[in-house]
This record gives sequence, C-alpha cells and structure tokens, in this order.
Amino acid sequence: MDPHDALSLNKSVVQVYPLSNYSVGAKAALKDKGISITERLERMQEKYEAEGLRRSVEGIVLVAQHNYPHVLLLQADGYWRLPGGRLRPGEGEVEGLLRKLNNKLGPTSGSTDWEIVDCVGTWWRPNFDTILYPYVPPHVTRPKEQKKLFVAQLPEKCSFAVPKNFKLMAVPLFELYDKTQRYGPVISHIPQLLSRFKINMS
Amino acid sequence: MDPHDALSLNKSVVQVYPLSNYSVGAKAALKDKGISITERLERMQEKYEAEGLRRSVEGIVLVAQHNYPHVLLLQADGYWRLPGGRLRPGEGEVEGLLRKLNNKLGPTSGSTDWEIVDCVGTWWRPNFDTILYPYVPPHVTRPKEQKKLFVAQLPEKCSFAVPKNFKLMAVPLFELYDKTQRYGPVISHIPQLLSRFKINMS
Repeated sequence: MDPHDALSLNKSVVQVYPLSNYSVGAKAALKDKGISITERLERMQEKYEAEGLRRSVEGIVLVAQHNYPHVLLLQADGYWRLPGGRLRPGEGEVEGLLRKLNNKLGPTSGSTDWEIVDCVGTWWRPNFDTILYPYVPPHVTRPKEQKKLFVAQLPEKCSFAVPKNFKLMAVPLFELYDKTQRYGPVISHIPQLLSRFKINMS
Repeated sequence: MDPHDALSLNKSVVQVYPLSNYSVGAKAALKDKGISITERLERMQEKYEAEGLRRSVEGIVLVAQHNYPHVLLLQADGYWRLPGGRLRPGEGEVEGLLRKLNNKLGPTSGSTDWEIVDCVGTWWRPNFDTILYPYVPPHVTRPKEQKKLFVAQLPEKCSFAVPKNFKLMAVPLFELYDKTQRYGPVISHIPQLLSRFKINMS
C-alpha cells in the first residue's frame, strides 16, 4: 500500500529525528502575505457562498532538539500557524494535506516523503470570525469551517524550502502548553492532542 | 476476540446513547470521602516510595442529552472527577480501567459491558503536588504519576450504581471547554481530545 493513500496503521508511535538532520532553504514568497484578518474573513465568506463548508487541514510536524520534541511552526505578520491550508472541493484530506505541506515546506523540486500518522483533532468555525471550537456548538447548524489536524511524520533526513515571507520555527511542546494568548487555541492545545502518542526520538 | 482484552479496532467513531436509556441507583460509599488533598499527596508519596510510578487510568463516558454529547463526571467535596483510579502493580491498563469503572459506576451485582475505544491522552505529575502536564517536562527524570485517559463506550442500555458519597453528573462538552479553573486541566481539555472522533448519537 502506498503510505500516501491512507493513514499509517501504527497510530500510537511517532518517530522524531533531530532538527539537525534537516536543511532549510528559501523559496518564492506565497501570496497571502500582508492580507488583513478582515480581508481573509471576507474572502472566506465569498468562498463559502460559492462552495459551502470550508475544509482545511494542518500538519503537526515534530523534530527533536536537546532530545525534546518541538513543533514546526510558520510565522508571518506576528501570527503563528501550522503548515496546511484549504482543501479543494472534492479533494481528499490526506491528499490535500500532502499538497499543502509540500507547498509550505517542501523543496522547490520534488516533494518530501511525509507519512500522515493520524488525525488528532478537529476544530470548527461557527461564524465568519476568528473563533474556533473543538466541537460544533449547539444550535449551530451550518458551521463555516472544519479544520482537521494531523500528525505528519518526517523522513529521517530531507530538505525544506520555506517561502520567503514566512519564518520557520521549532517550538518545544512545553512552550506551547497553556499559551492560548500567544499561539491561539489550536496551536496551544497541541501538547494535549499529542499526549496519547509515544514519541520516539532516536 | 473478547472486546475486554484489547482496545476496540474502530477508533474513529464513538457510539453514544441517550441518558434516559440508563437507570441510576446508589451503592455503599467509597472510602476516600473527606480525605484532604494534603493527605492524598502524602499517601501518594508513601506509595511511590514502595511501588514507584503511580499509574492511573480514567474513562471518558459519553451520553446524549438534547442530542448533544455529555461527559459523565463524579462530584464529591466540591471536586469533579472522571471515573477511574490507580492501577495495581502489574495490572493491564484496560483490565484496570474496567475494574475501576465497575467499582465507580457498575451495578452492585454483575458488571457493565464497557467497550474501551481508545486512549485519548496522557497526563504526568512531576512532583507530589496537584500540577499535571500533558508531557513529561524537560529535566524531569522521575515523574510521580502517569494518568491515561480512555474513551469508554457504554452499551445501549444498562444500570449504574453510584457510591453514596458521589454525585453523578452529565456535563455537556461545550460547558467543559476552556473551564480549567472549574474542572481542572484534565477534564476541561476533554473536548479537544474527543474532537477527532465522529460522535454518533442514534
């Protein structure tokens, strides 16, 4: 079975390699730099009216530093985000996540051999604003976005290319915990979502 | 395969039935009523010195009310807790969880046919105090307790018996979210831990 066609079968272990195994280069900027939150939400509303529920997928990518797990985050305009993005209409979640991970982090030629381990959480946006919940609140019949989080395991070694308008940071799990103010609800709760896994650092 | 010997194989769906399917009776009080936190932590330290790492397991048990998922919680002395408890030395996690669930909620004769769906999180206690983290913090080499959370699925109908010194409450997911002050870090983060499941309410 092609590991890209489905989720990995071993869902309780995540293999993590040292950050020093990876080289990081730059590539052309992605076009969403400098767009305000208001503009983003307006676009989201336009898309919703045309296509319905926005489905987005994001990858939690781990590396080891000082023998401790760190999450790869992209920073731009003062915001932290996980690599990922919106699925195309009809696109599969794993297929779309691989496309988005390569788009955000993959090398300029070829692609990284990601292994999508498991879905670890789902967040819902009830309205065209910045508030997300890990459930559909009662009385919300038409949520505007579903955002699914997956653990994406890296190969032992590879090269990243990061769009020039983003900074790639490796943030330790303990730094994210309970920091909703700084990282937002989705990223700050990653430690809880990962706590069921055995994280193997070889 | 006996469903009690291992985790259920279908790990992405949780079947939930209406609270009205279950009858709730009372049984003899459990003996830990009225013990102060200080006394608990002292006991924990004594046990640790004799047996090493305390392993505990807790069950997230869901019921539907108004077609919305609720978590069963036990309340005593102003504290909320999940049904569960400490494993015996050498005891298996699923085996011990079933024992504890029946001890806390099972009928006075016979036992409930719980189906343990999956582990959803692990919390660690680095010191003999009330602080838990969803990871082992760096530089902590000998954590004092590992607490594992499992989703425990109920049969379609059954009877509970609740120890007289506890109150059984069904609390909706949205009420738990972001209420660390009221429910503590473990219970208040249940919505995130469950967000990857499809919750089927028939």
